[in-house]
Amino acid sequence: MHTYRLIISCPDRTGIVAQITQFIAQHNGWIIEASQHADVGTAWFFMRYEIKADSLTLSLPALREAFLPIADEFDMQWAIHDSAVPKKVILMASRTAHCLADLLHRWQQGTLGCDIQCVISNHELLHETVSFYGIPYHHIPIDPADKTTGLRQVAEQVGEYESDAIVLARYMQIFPPDFCQQYAGKMINIHHSFLPSFMGADPYQQAHTRGVKLIGATCHYVTEALDAGPIIEQDVIRVNHQHDSEAMRDLGSDVERMVLARGLRYHLEDRVLLHGNKTVVFV
Amino acid sequence: MHTYRLIISCPDRTGIVAQITQFIAQHNGWIIEASQHADVGTAWFFMRYEIKADSLTLSLPALREAFLPIADEFDMQWAIHDSAVPKKVILMASRTAHCLADLLHRWQQGTLGCDIQCVISNHELLHETVSFYGIPYHHIPIDPADKTTGLRQVAEQVGEYESDAIVLARYMQIFPPDFCQQYAGKMINIHHSFLPSFMGADPYQQAHTRGVKLIGATCHYVTEALDAGPIIEQDVIRVNHQHDSEAMRDLGSDVERMVLARGLRYHLEDRVLLHGNKTVVFV
Amino acid sequence: MHTYRLIISCPDRTGIVAQITQFIAQHNGWIIEASQHADVGTAWFFMRYEIKADSLTLSLPALREAFLPIADEFDMQWAIHDSAVPKKVILMASRTAHCLADLLHRWQQGTLGCDIQCVISNHELLHETVSFYGIPYHHIPIDPADKTTGLRQVAEQVGEYESDAIVLARYMQIFPPDFCQQYAGKMINIHHSFLPSFMGADPYQQAHTRGVKLIGATCHYVTEALDAGPIIEQDVIRVNHQHDSEAMRDLGSDVERMVLARGLRYHLEDRVLLHGNKTVVFV
Amino acid sequence: MHTYRLIISCPDRTGIVAQITQFIAQHNGWIIEASQHADVGTAWFFMRYEIKADSLTLSLPALREAFLPIADEFDMQWAIHDSAVPKKVILMASRTAHCLADLLHRWQQGTLGCDIQCVISNHELLHETVSFYGIPYHHIPIDPADKTTGLRQVAEQVGEYESDAIVLARYMQIFPPDFCQQYAGKMINIHHSFLPSFMGADPYQQAHTRGVKLIGATCHYVTEALDAGPIIEQDVIRVNHQHDSEAMRDLGSDVERMVLARGLRYHLEDRVLLHGNKTVVFV
Repeated sequence: MHTYRLIISCPDRTGIVAQITQFIAQHNGWIIEASQHADVGTAWFFMRYEIKADSLTLSLPALREAFLPIADEFDMQWAIHDSAVPKKVILMASRTAHCLADLLHRWQQGTLGCDIQCVISNHELLHETVSFYGIPYHHIPIDPADKTTGLRQVAEQVGEYESDAIVLARYMQIFPPDFCQQYAGKMINIHHSFLPSFMGADPYQQAHTRGVKLIGATCHYVTEALDAGPIIEQDVIRVNHQHDSEAMRDLGSDVERMVLARGLRYHLEDRVLLHGNKTVVFV
Repeated sequence: MHTYRLIISCPDRTGIVAQITQFIAQHNGWIIEASQHADVGTAWFFMRYEIKADSLTLSLPALREAFLPIADEFDMQWAIHDSAVPKKVILMASRTAHCLADLLHRWQQGTLGCDIQCVISNHELLHETVSFYGIPYHHIPIDPADKTTGLRQVAEQVGEYESDAIVLARYMQIFPPDFCQQYAGKMINIHHSFLPSFMGADPYQQAHTRGVKLIGATCHYVTEALDAGPIIEQDVIRVNHQHDSEAMRDLGSDVERMVLARGLRYHLEDRVLLHGNKTVVFV
Repeated sequence: MHTYRLIISCPDRTGIVAQITQFIAQHNGWIIEASQHADVGTAWFFMRYEIKADSLTLSLPALREAFLPIADEFDMQWAIHDSAVPKKVILMASRTAHCLADLLHRWQQGTLGCDIQCVISNHELLHETVSFYGIPYHHIPIDPADKTTGLRQVAEQVGEYESDAIVLARYMQIFPPDFCQQYAGKMINIHHSFLPSFMGADPYQQAHTRGVKLIGATCHYVTEALDAGPIIEQDVIRVNHQHDSEAMRDLGSDVERMVLARGLRYHLEDRVLLHGNKTVVFV
Repeated sequence: MHTYRLIISCPDRTGIVAQITQFIAQHNGWIIEASQHADVGTAWFFMRYEIKADSLTLSLPALREAFLPIADEFDMQWAIHDSAVPKKVILMASRTAHCLADLLHRWQQGTLGCDIQCVISNHELLHETVSFYGIPYHHIPIDPADKTTGLRQVAEQVGEYESDAIVLARYMQIFPPDFCQQYAGKMINIHHSFLPSFMGADPYQQAHTRGVKLIGATCHYVTEALDAGPIIEQDVIRVNHQHDSEAMRDLGSDVERMVLARGLRYHLEDRVLLHGNKTVVFV
């Protein structure tokens, strides 16, 4: 169904919803999905409405124009997204295939509603798989002795596209702070542990050493602080003494791709609203 | 926080939310939790709003009075519940203690917001436990050779209370149709299987015979059709070849009490809306 | 690690394990994984041992020969499998890609230890995907007006390979009884519901109509009785009133491929022992 | 069923199982449950056998005596436990009731096979509940200004019993190192987070601040290092932006009592074997 998605966050007070819904009704809008959250601790308000596009008497630009006064009155951060315009996505990966292959397959099946602009990798390993799907592949090596040069090339390559999401599908390089800031709220990573447990390198080895009985994966926005950005989605799977770190890696890879696919889908459907270093996810 | 809960279901059309929220804003109501659902297949609308009680300029009776014209205009089934008025609950059980003991403990801890009016049982076995909590215990035996007499006495006993919920916490008798109809949408059962699998007697034995790898429990409203009423909540737990039906019973008992406690809490918090033989549960 | 897997089921009695382990020790075998189960109800014994291949002083044929007297003494059904010999697998699918693509990807990554001999489908739709992996694709149409002819061709095609597993990765045709009998214990199906709920056609529609709060998938051996064979593995995922049958299908597809992949892996690693219409799965 | 449980851990090598099973067969023992694990990384062997008591031709003391030479030969840490002798357990708690009440209820129902010797608490709050079950209650206050005195009294009280397990069912005091050492492998704690995330105080507040999407609980043996001992069991539950730390506490309390009950049951049934700072749990 063709919808417009009205996404709002603002300081909470009486009358916000009334004003918004009155505005929508005034233009004959049919709300088919509505989610709201009032964070009592911070007195902040969050909202996501899906409105049937063809129920409205206004065009999208006119709708945005008409909404401006309300947005100003309530100091809103807001957007109206058109569900008919697929988001543009860059995928990045290193050597590990499972997350990338999973997203490509979902995209091909039409269950991941987005345009994949390209894949960027610091290795050639996944080139053939990506080419099978007819997607451009940029191989930009990262020299361990001089990471800056390679990462600058990556930044340039990313800059040539205008993207709604940059997905680190097991891309094993750390970006400099300015890059993280530039794409804040748009760059999504999958970390192969149940954060905040086992940040940093080789979390499955860490999990094995600690002897945990569940391992997990975390989909989060990338910030300057490594593995510490706002969490979008997490999940876990049971392990036991029979699983060495290699077996955990195998089991965990299924959790990783499920969690990344879910987290990315929430992002693409405008279900994730940032709230400081946390997220409101309307599902 | 003291709130009023506005619960609505009605045929879906444009402008419902606008009218309601305008009404709330008009009376200065602060919405702190809002849930809506538009069922596209049946074109039916469902809503649950929590409004800060002390933000409103009207008393509860006046609020209900003022809302009537809107309710009429949209053919609403509706109610406004006061969170400060605990729901009145009758618990029923037979010999099995775990669900009953769990609810009594939650009630005592104050995490199950309700008044427990009494416990009705066809056995004496749980009398002492119930008395520890200071709750009246009605022992009404059911003679297998003449169930009608006992069940009529149960109906009379239930009728002496005015209850918002009758909870069958492993009460192993089947009620006649007229009793089910009288308390439709108020009588909650826990069935010890993942319905619609294993309806009827001894579901753990059925599960063992079939060799399933997960067993479950289902909290549902009671209707005339045995184990076929609207489902409120379900959950499962993993089993394997080591578990005979007795071991399944032990494992399953934990699922039963969790599922019943969750389902009942949803009911008590006015989160469950009936939709034919299904439910909308706003959590 | 290169191992021999000794798989046994037989009537239970004292001394079985002693005889077997003495036999293994006699030939210097190092047991690295051992699983046993004594089913008390049926007095049947099940065992799976993994023995380091290079610890043994005998060749595999000699080992089998030497074990025969013990097997006879205890009326064993038994086998010794060589972990270095990958099992041979035929995949079958119709139009739905997700299960097939998932297995092909795992196979390519080397995490599904088997040889895929071919894919058989009643449609052309998945041909290109299969060819990307370099696997033969047999398109055998099934004429709805004369299913017998097509299914006989399928039987002939299957018969040309010698296979350890035939995997119905969402193959939407029903095989005749003799075919089911011929490949009993070798033909694995994924059913898109939590059996025994929702057997037969369109389980997601059935689940939606019933209003369940969890949907699931079941991996089982195929028998003559539709969707009633021995269950290998099951799992579920949470749904709610927002999910129509289409959304359930999307969510469920992830459960299906996880459950099929796990179930098939158990089969390939000789972890599944049949016990009447049930399974013992050593994991 | 009356069984003897033979628990062994020792350096791994060829022939261990053969010797043990031959020994058992020699004395006519019927093995009804067998679990083994060979940890390849540390070359250590773990075993748990359940043997039908009445199948053996020896008394338990004679059996232990007869086993000694084998135990010596393989440098075993070992024990033979009699399933008919319930383990003796001390429960400790502070103000929070849910874990304690859960264990008491299971004990009363006979599903937690143990003798509860007493409850020790630094508060009077839970006295009445414990007395209902007819169990001695020792109130030993801990003066925040002088914890040493109170904790010494606790140690003396514990010392008056001979216990197989000391269960910290939300006991909110930290024991001195010598006490932890004295009861190493016997003192079981429930921590209200998914360790190693959120060690120390108020983990639900920490979880809320971090914005995780799952919260959990961990049952572990107590060691000198706070919240860092060998993990026995863990589980998680889903949360979202609607849950403040108080709501997380409510949801989490159900996970805590399930995880503690499972972990304790594993300990009581001799299913947990220590392996450095990790556990092998045979379930």
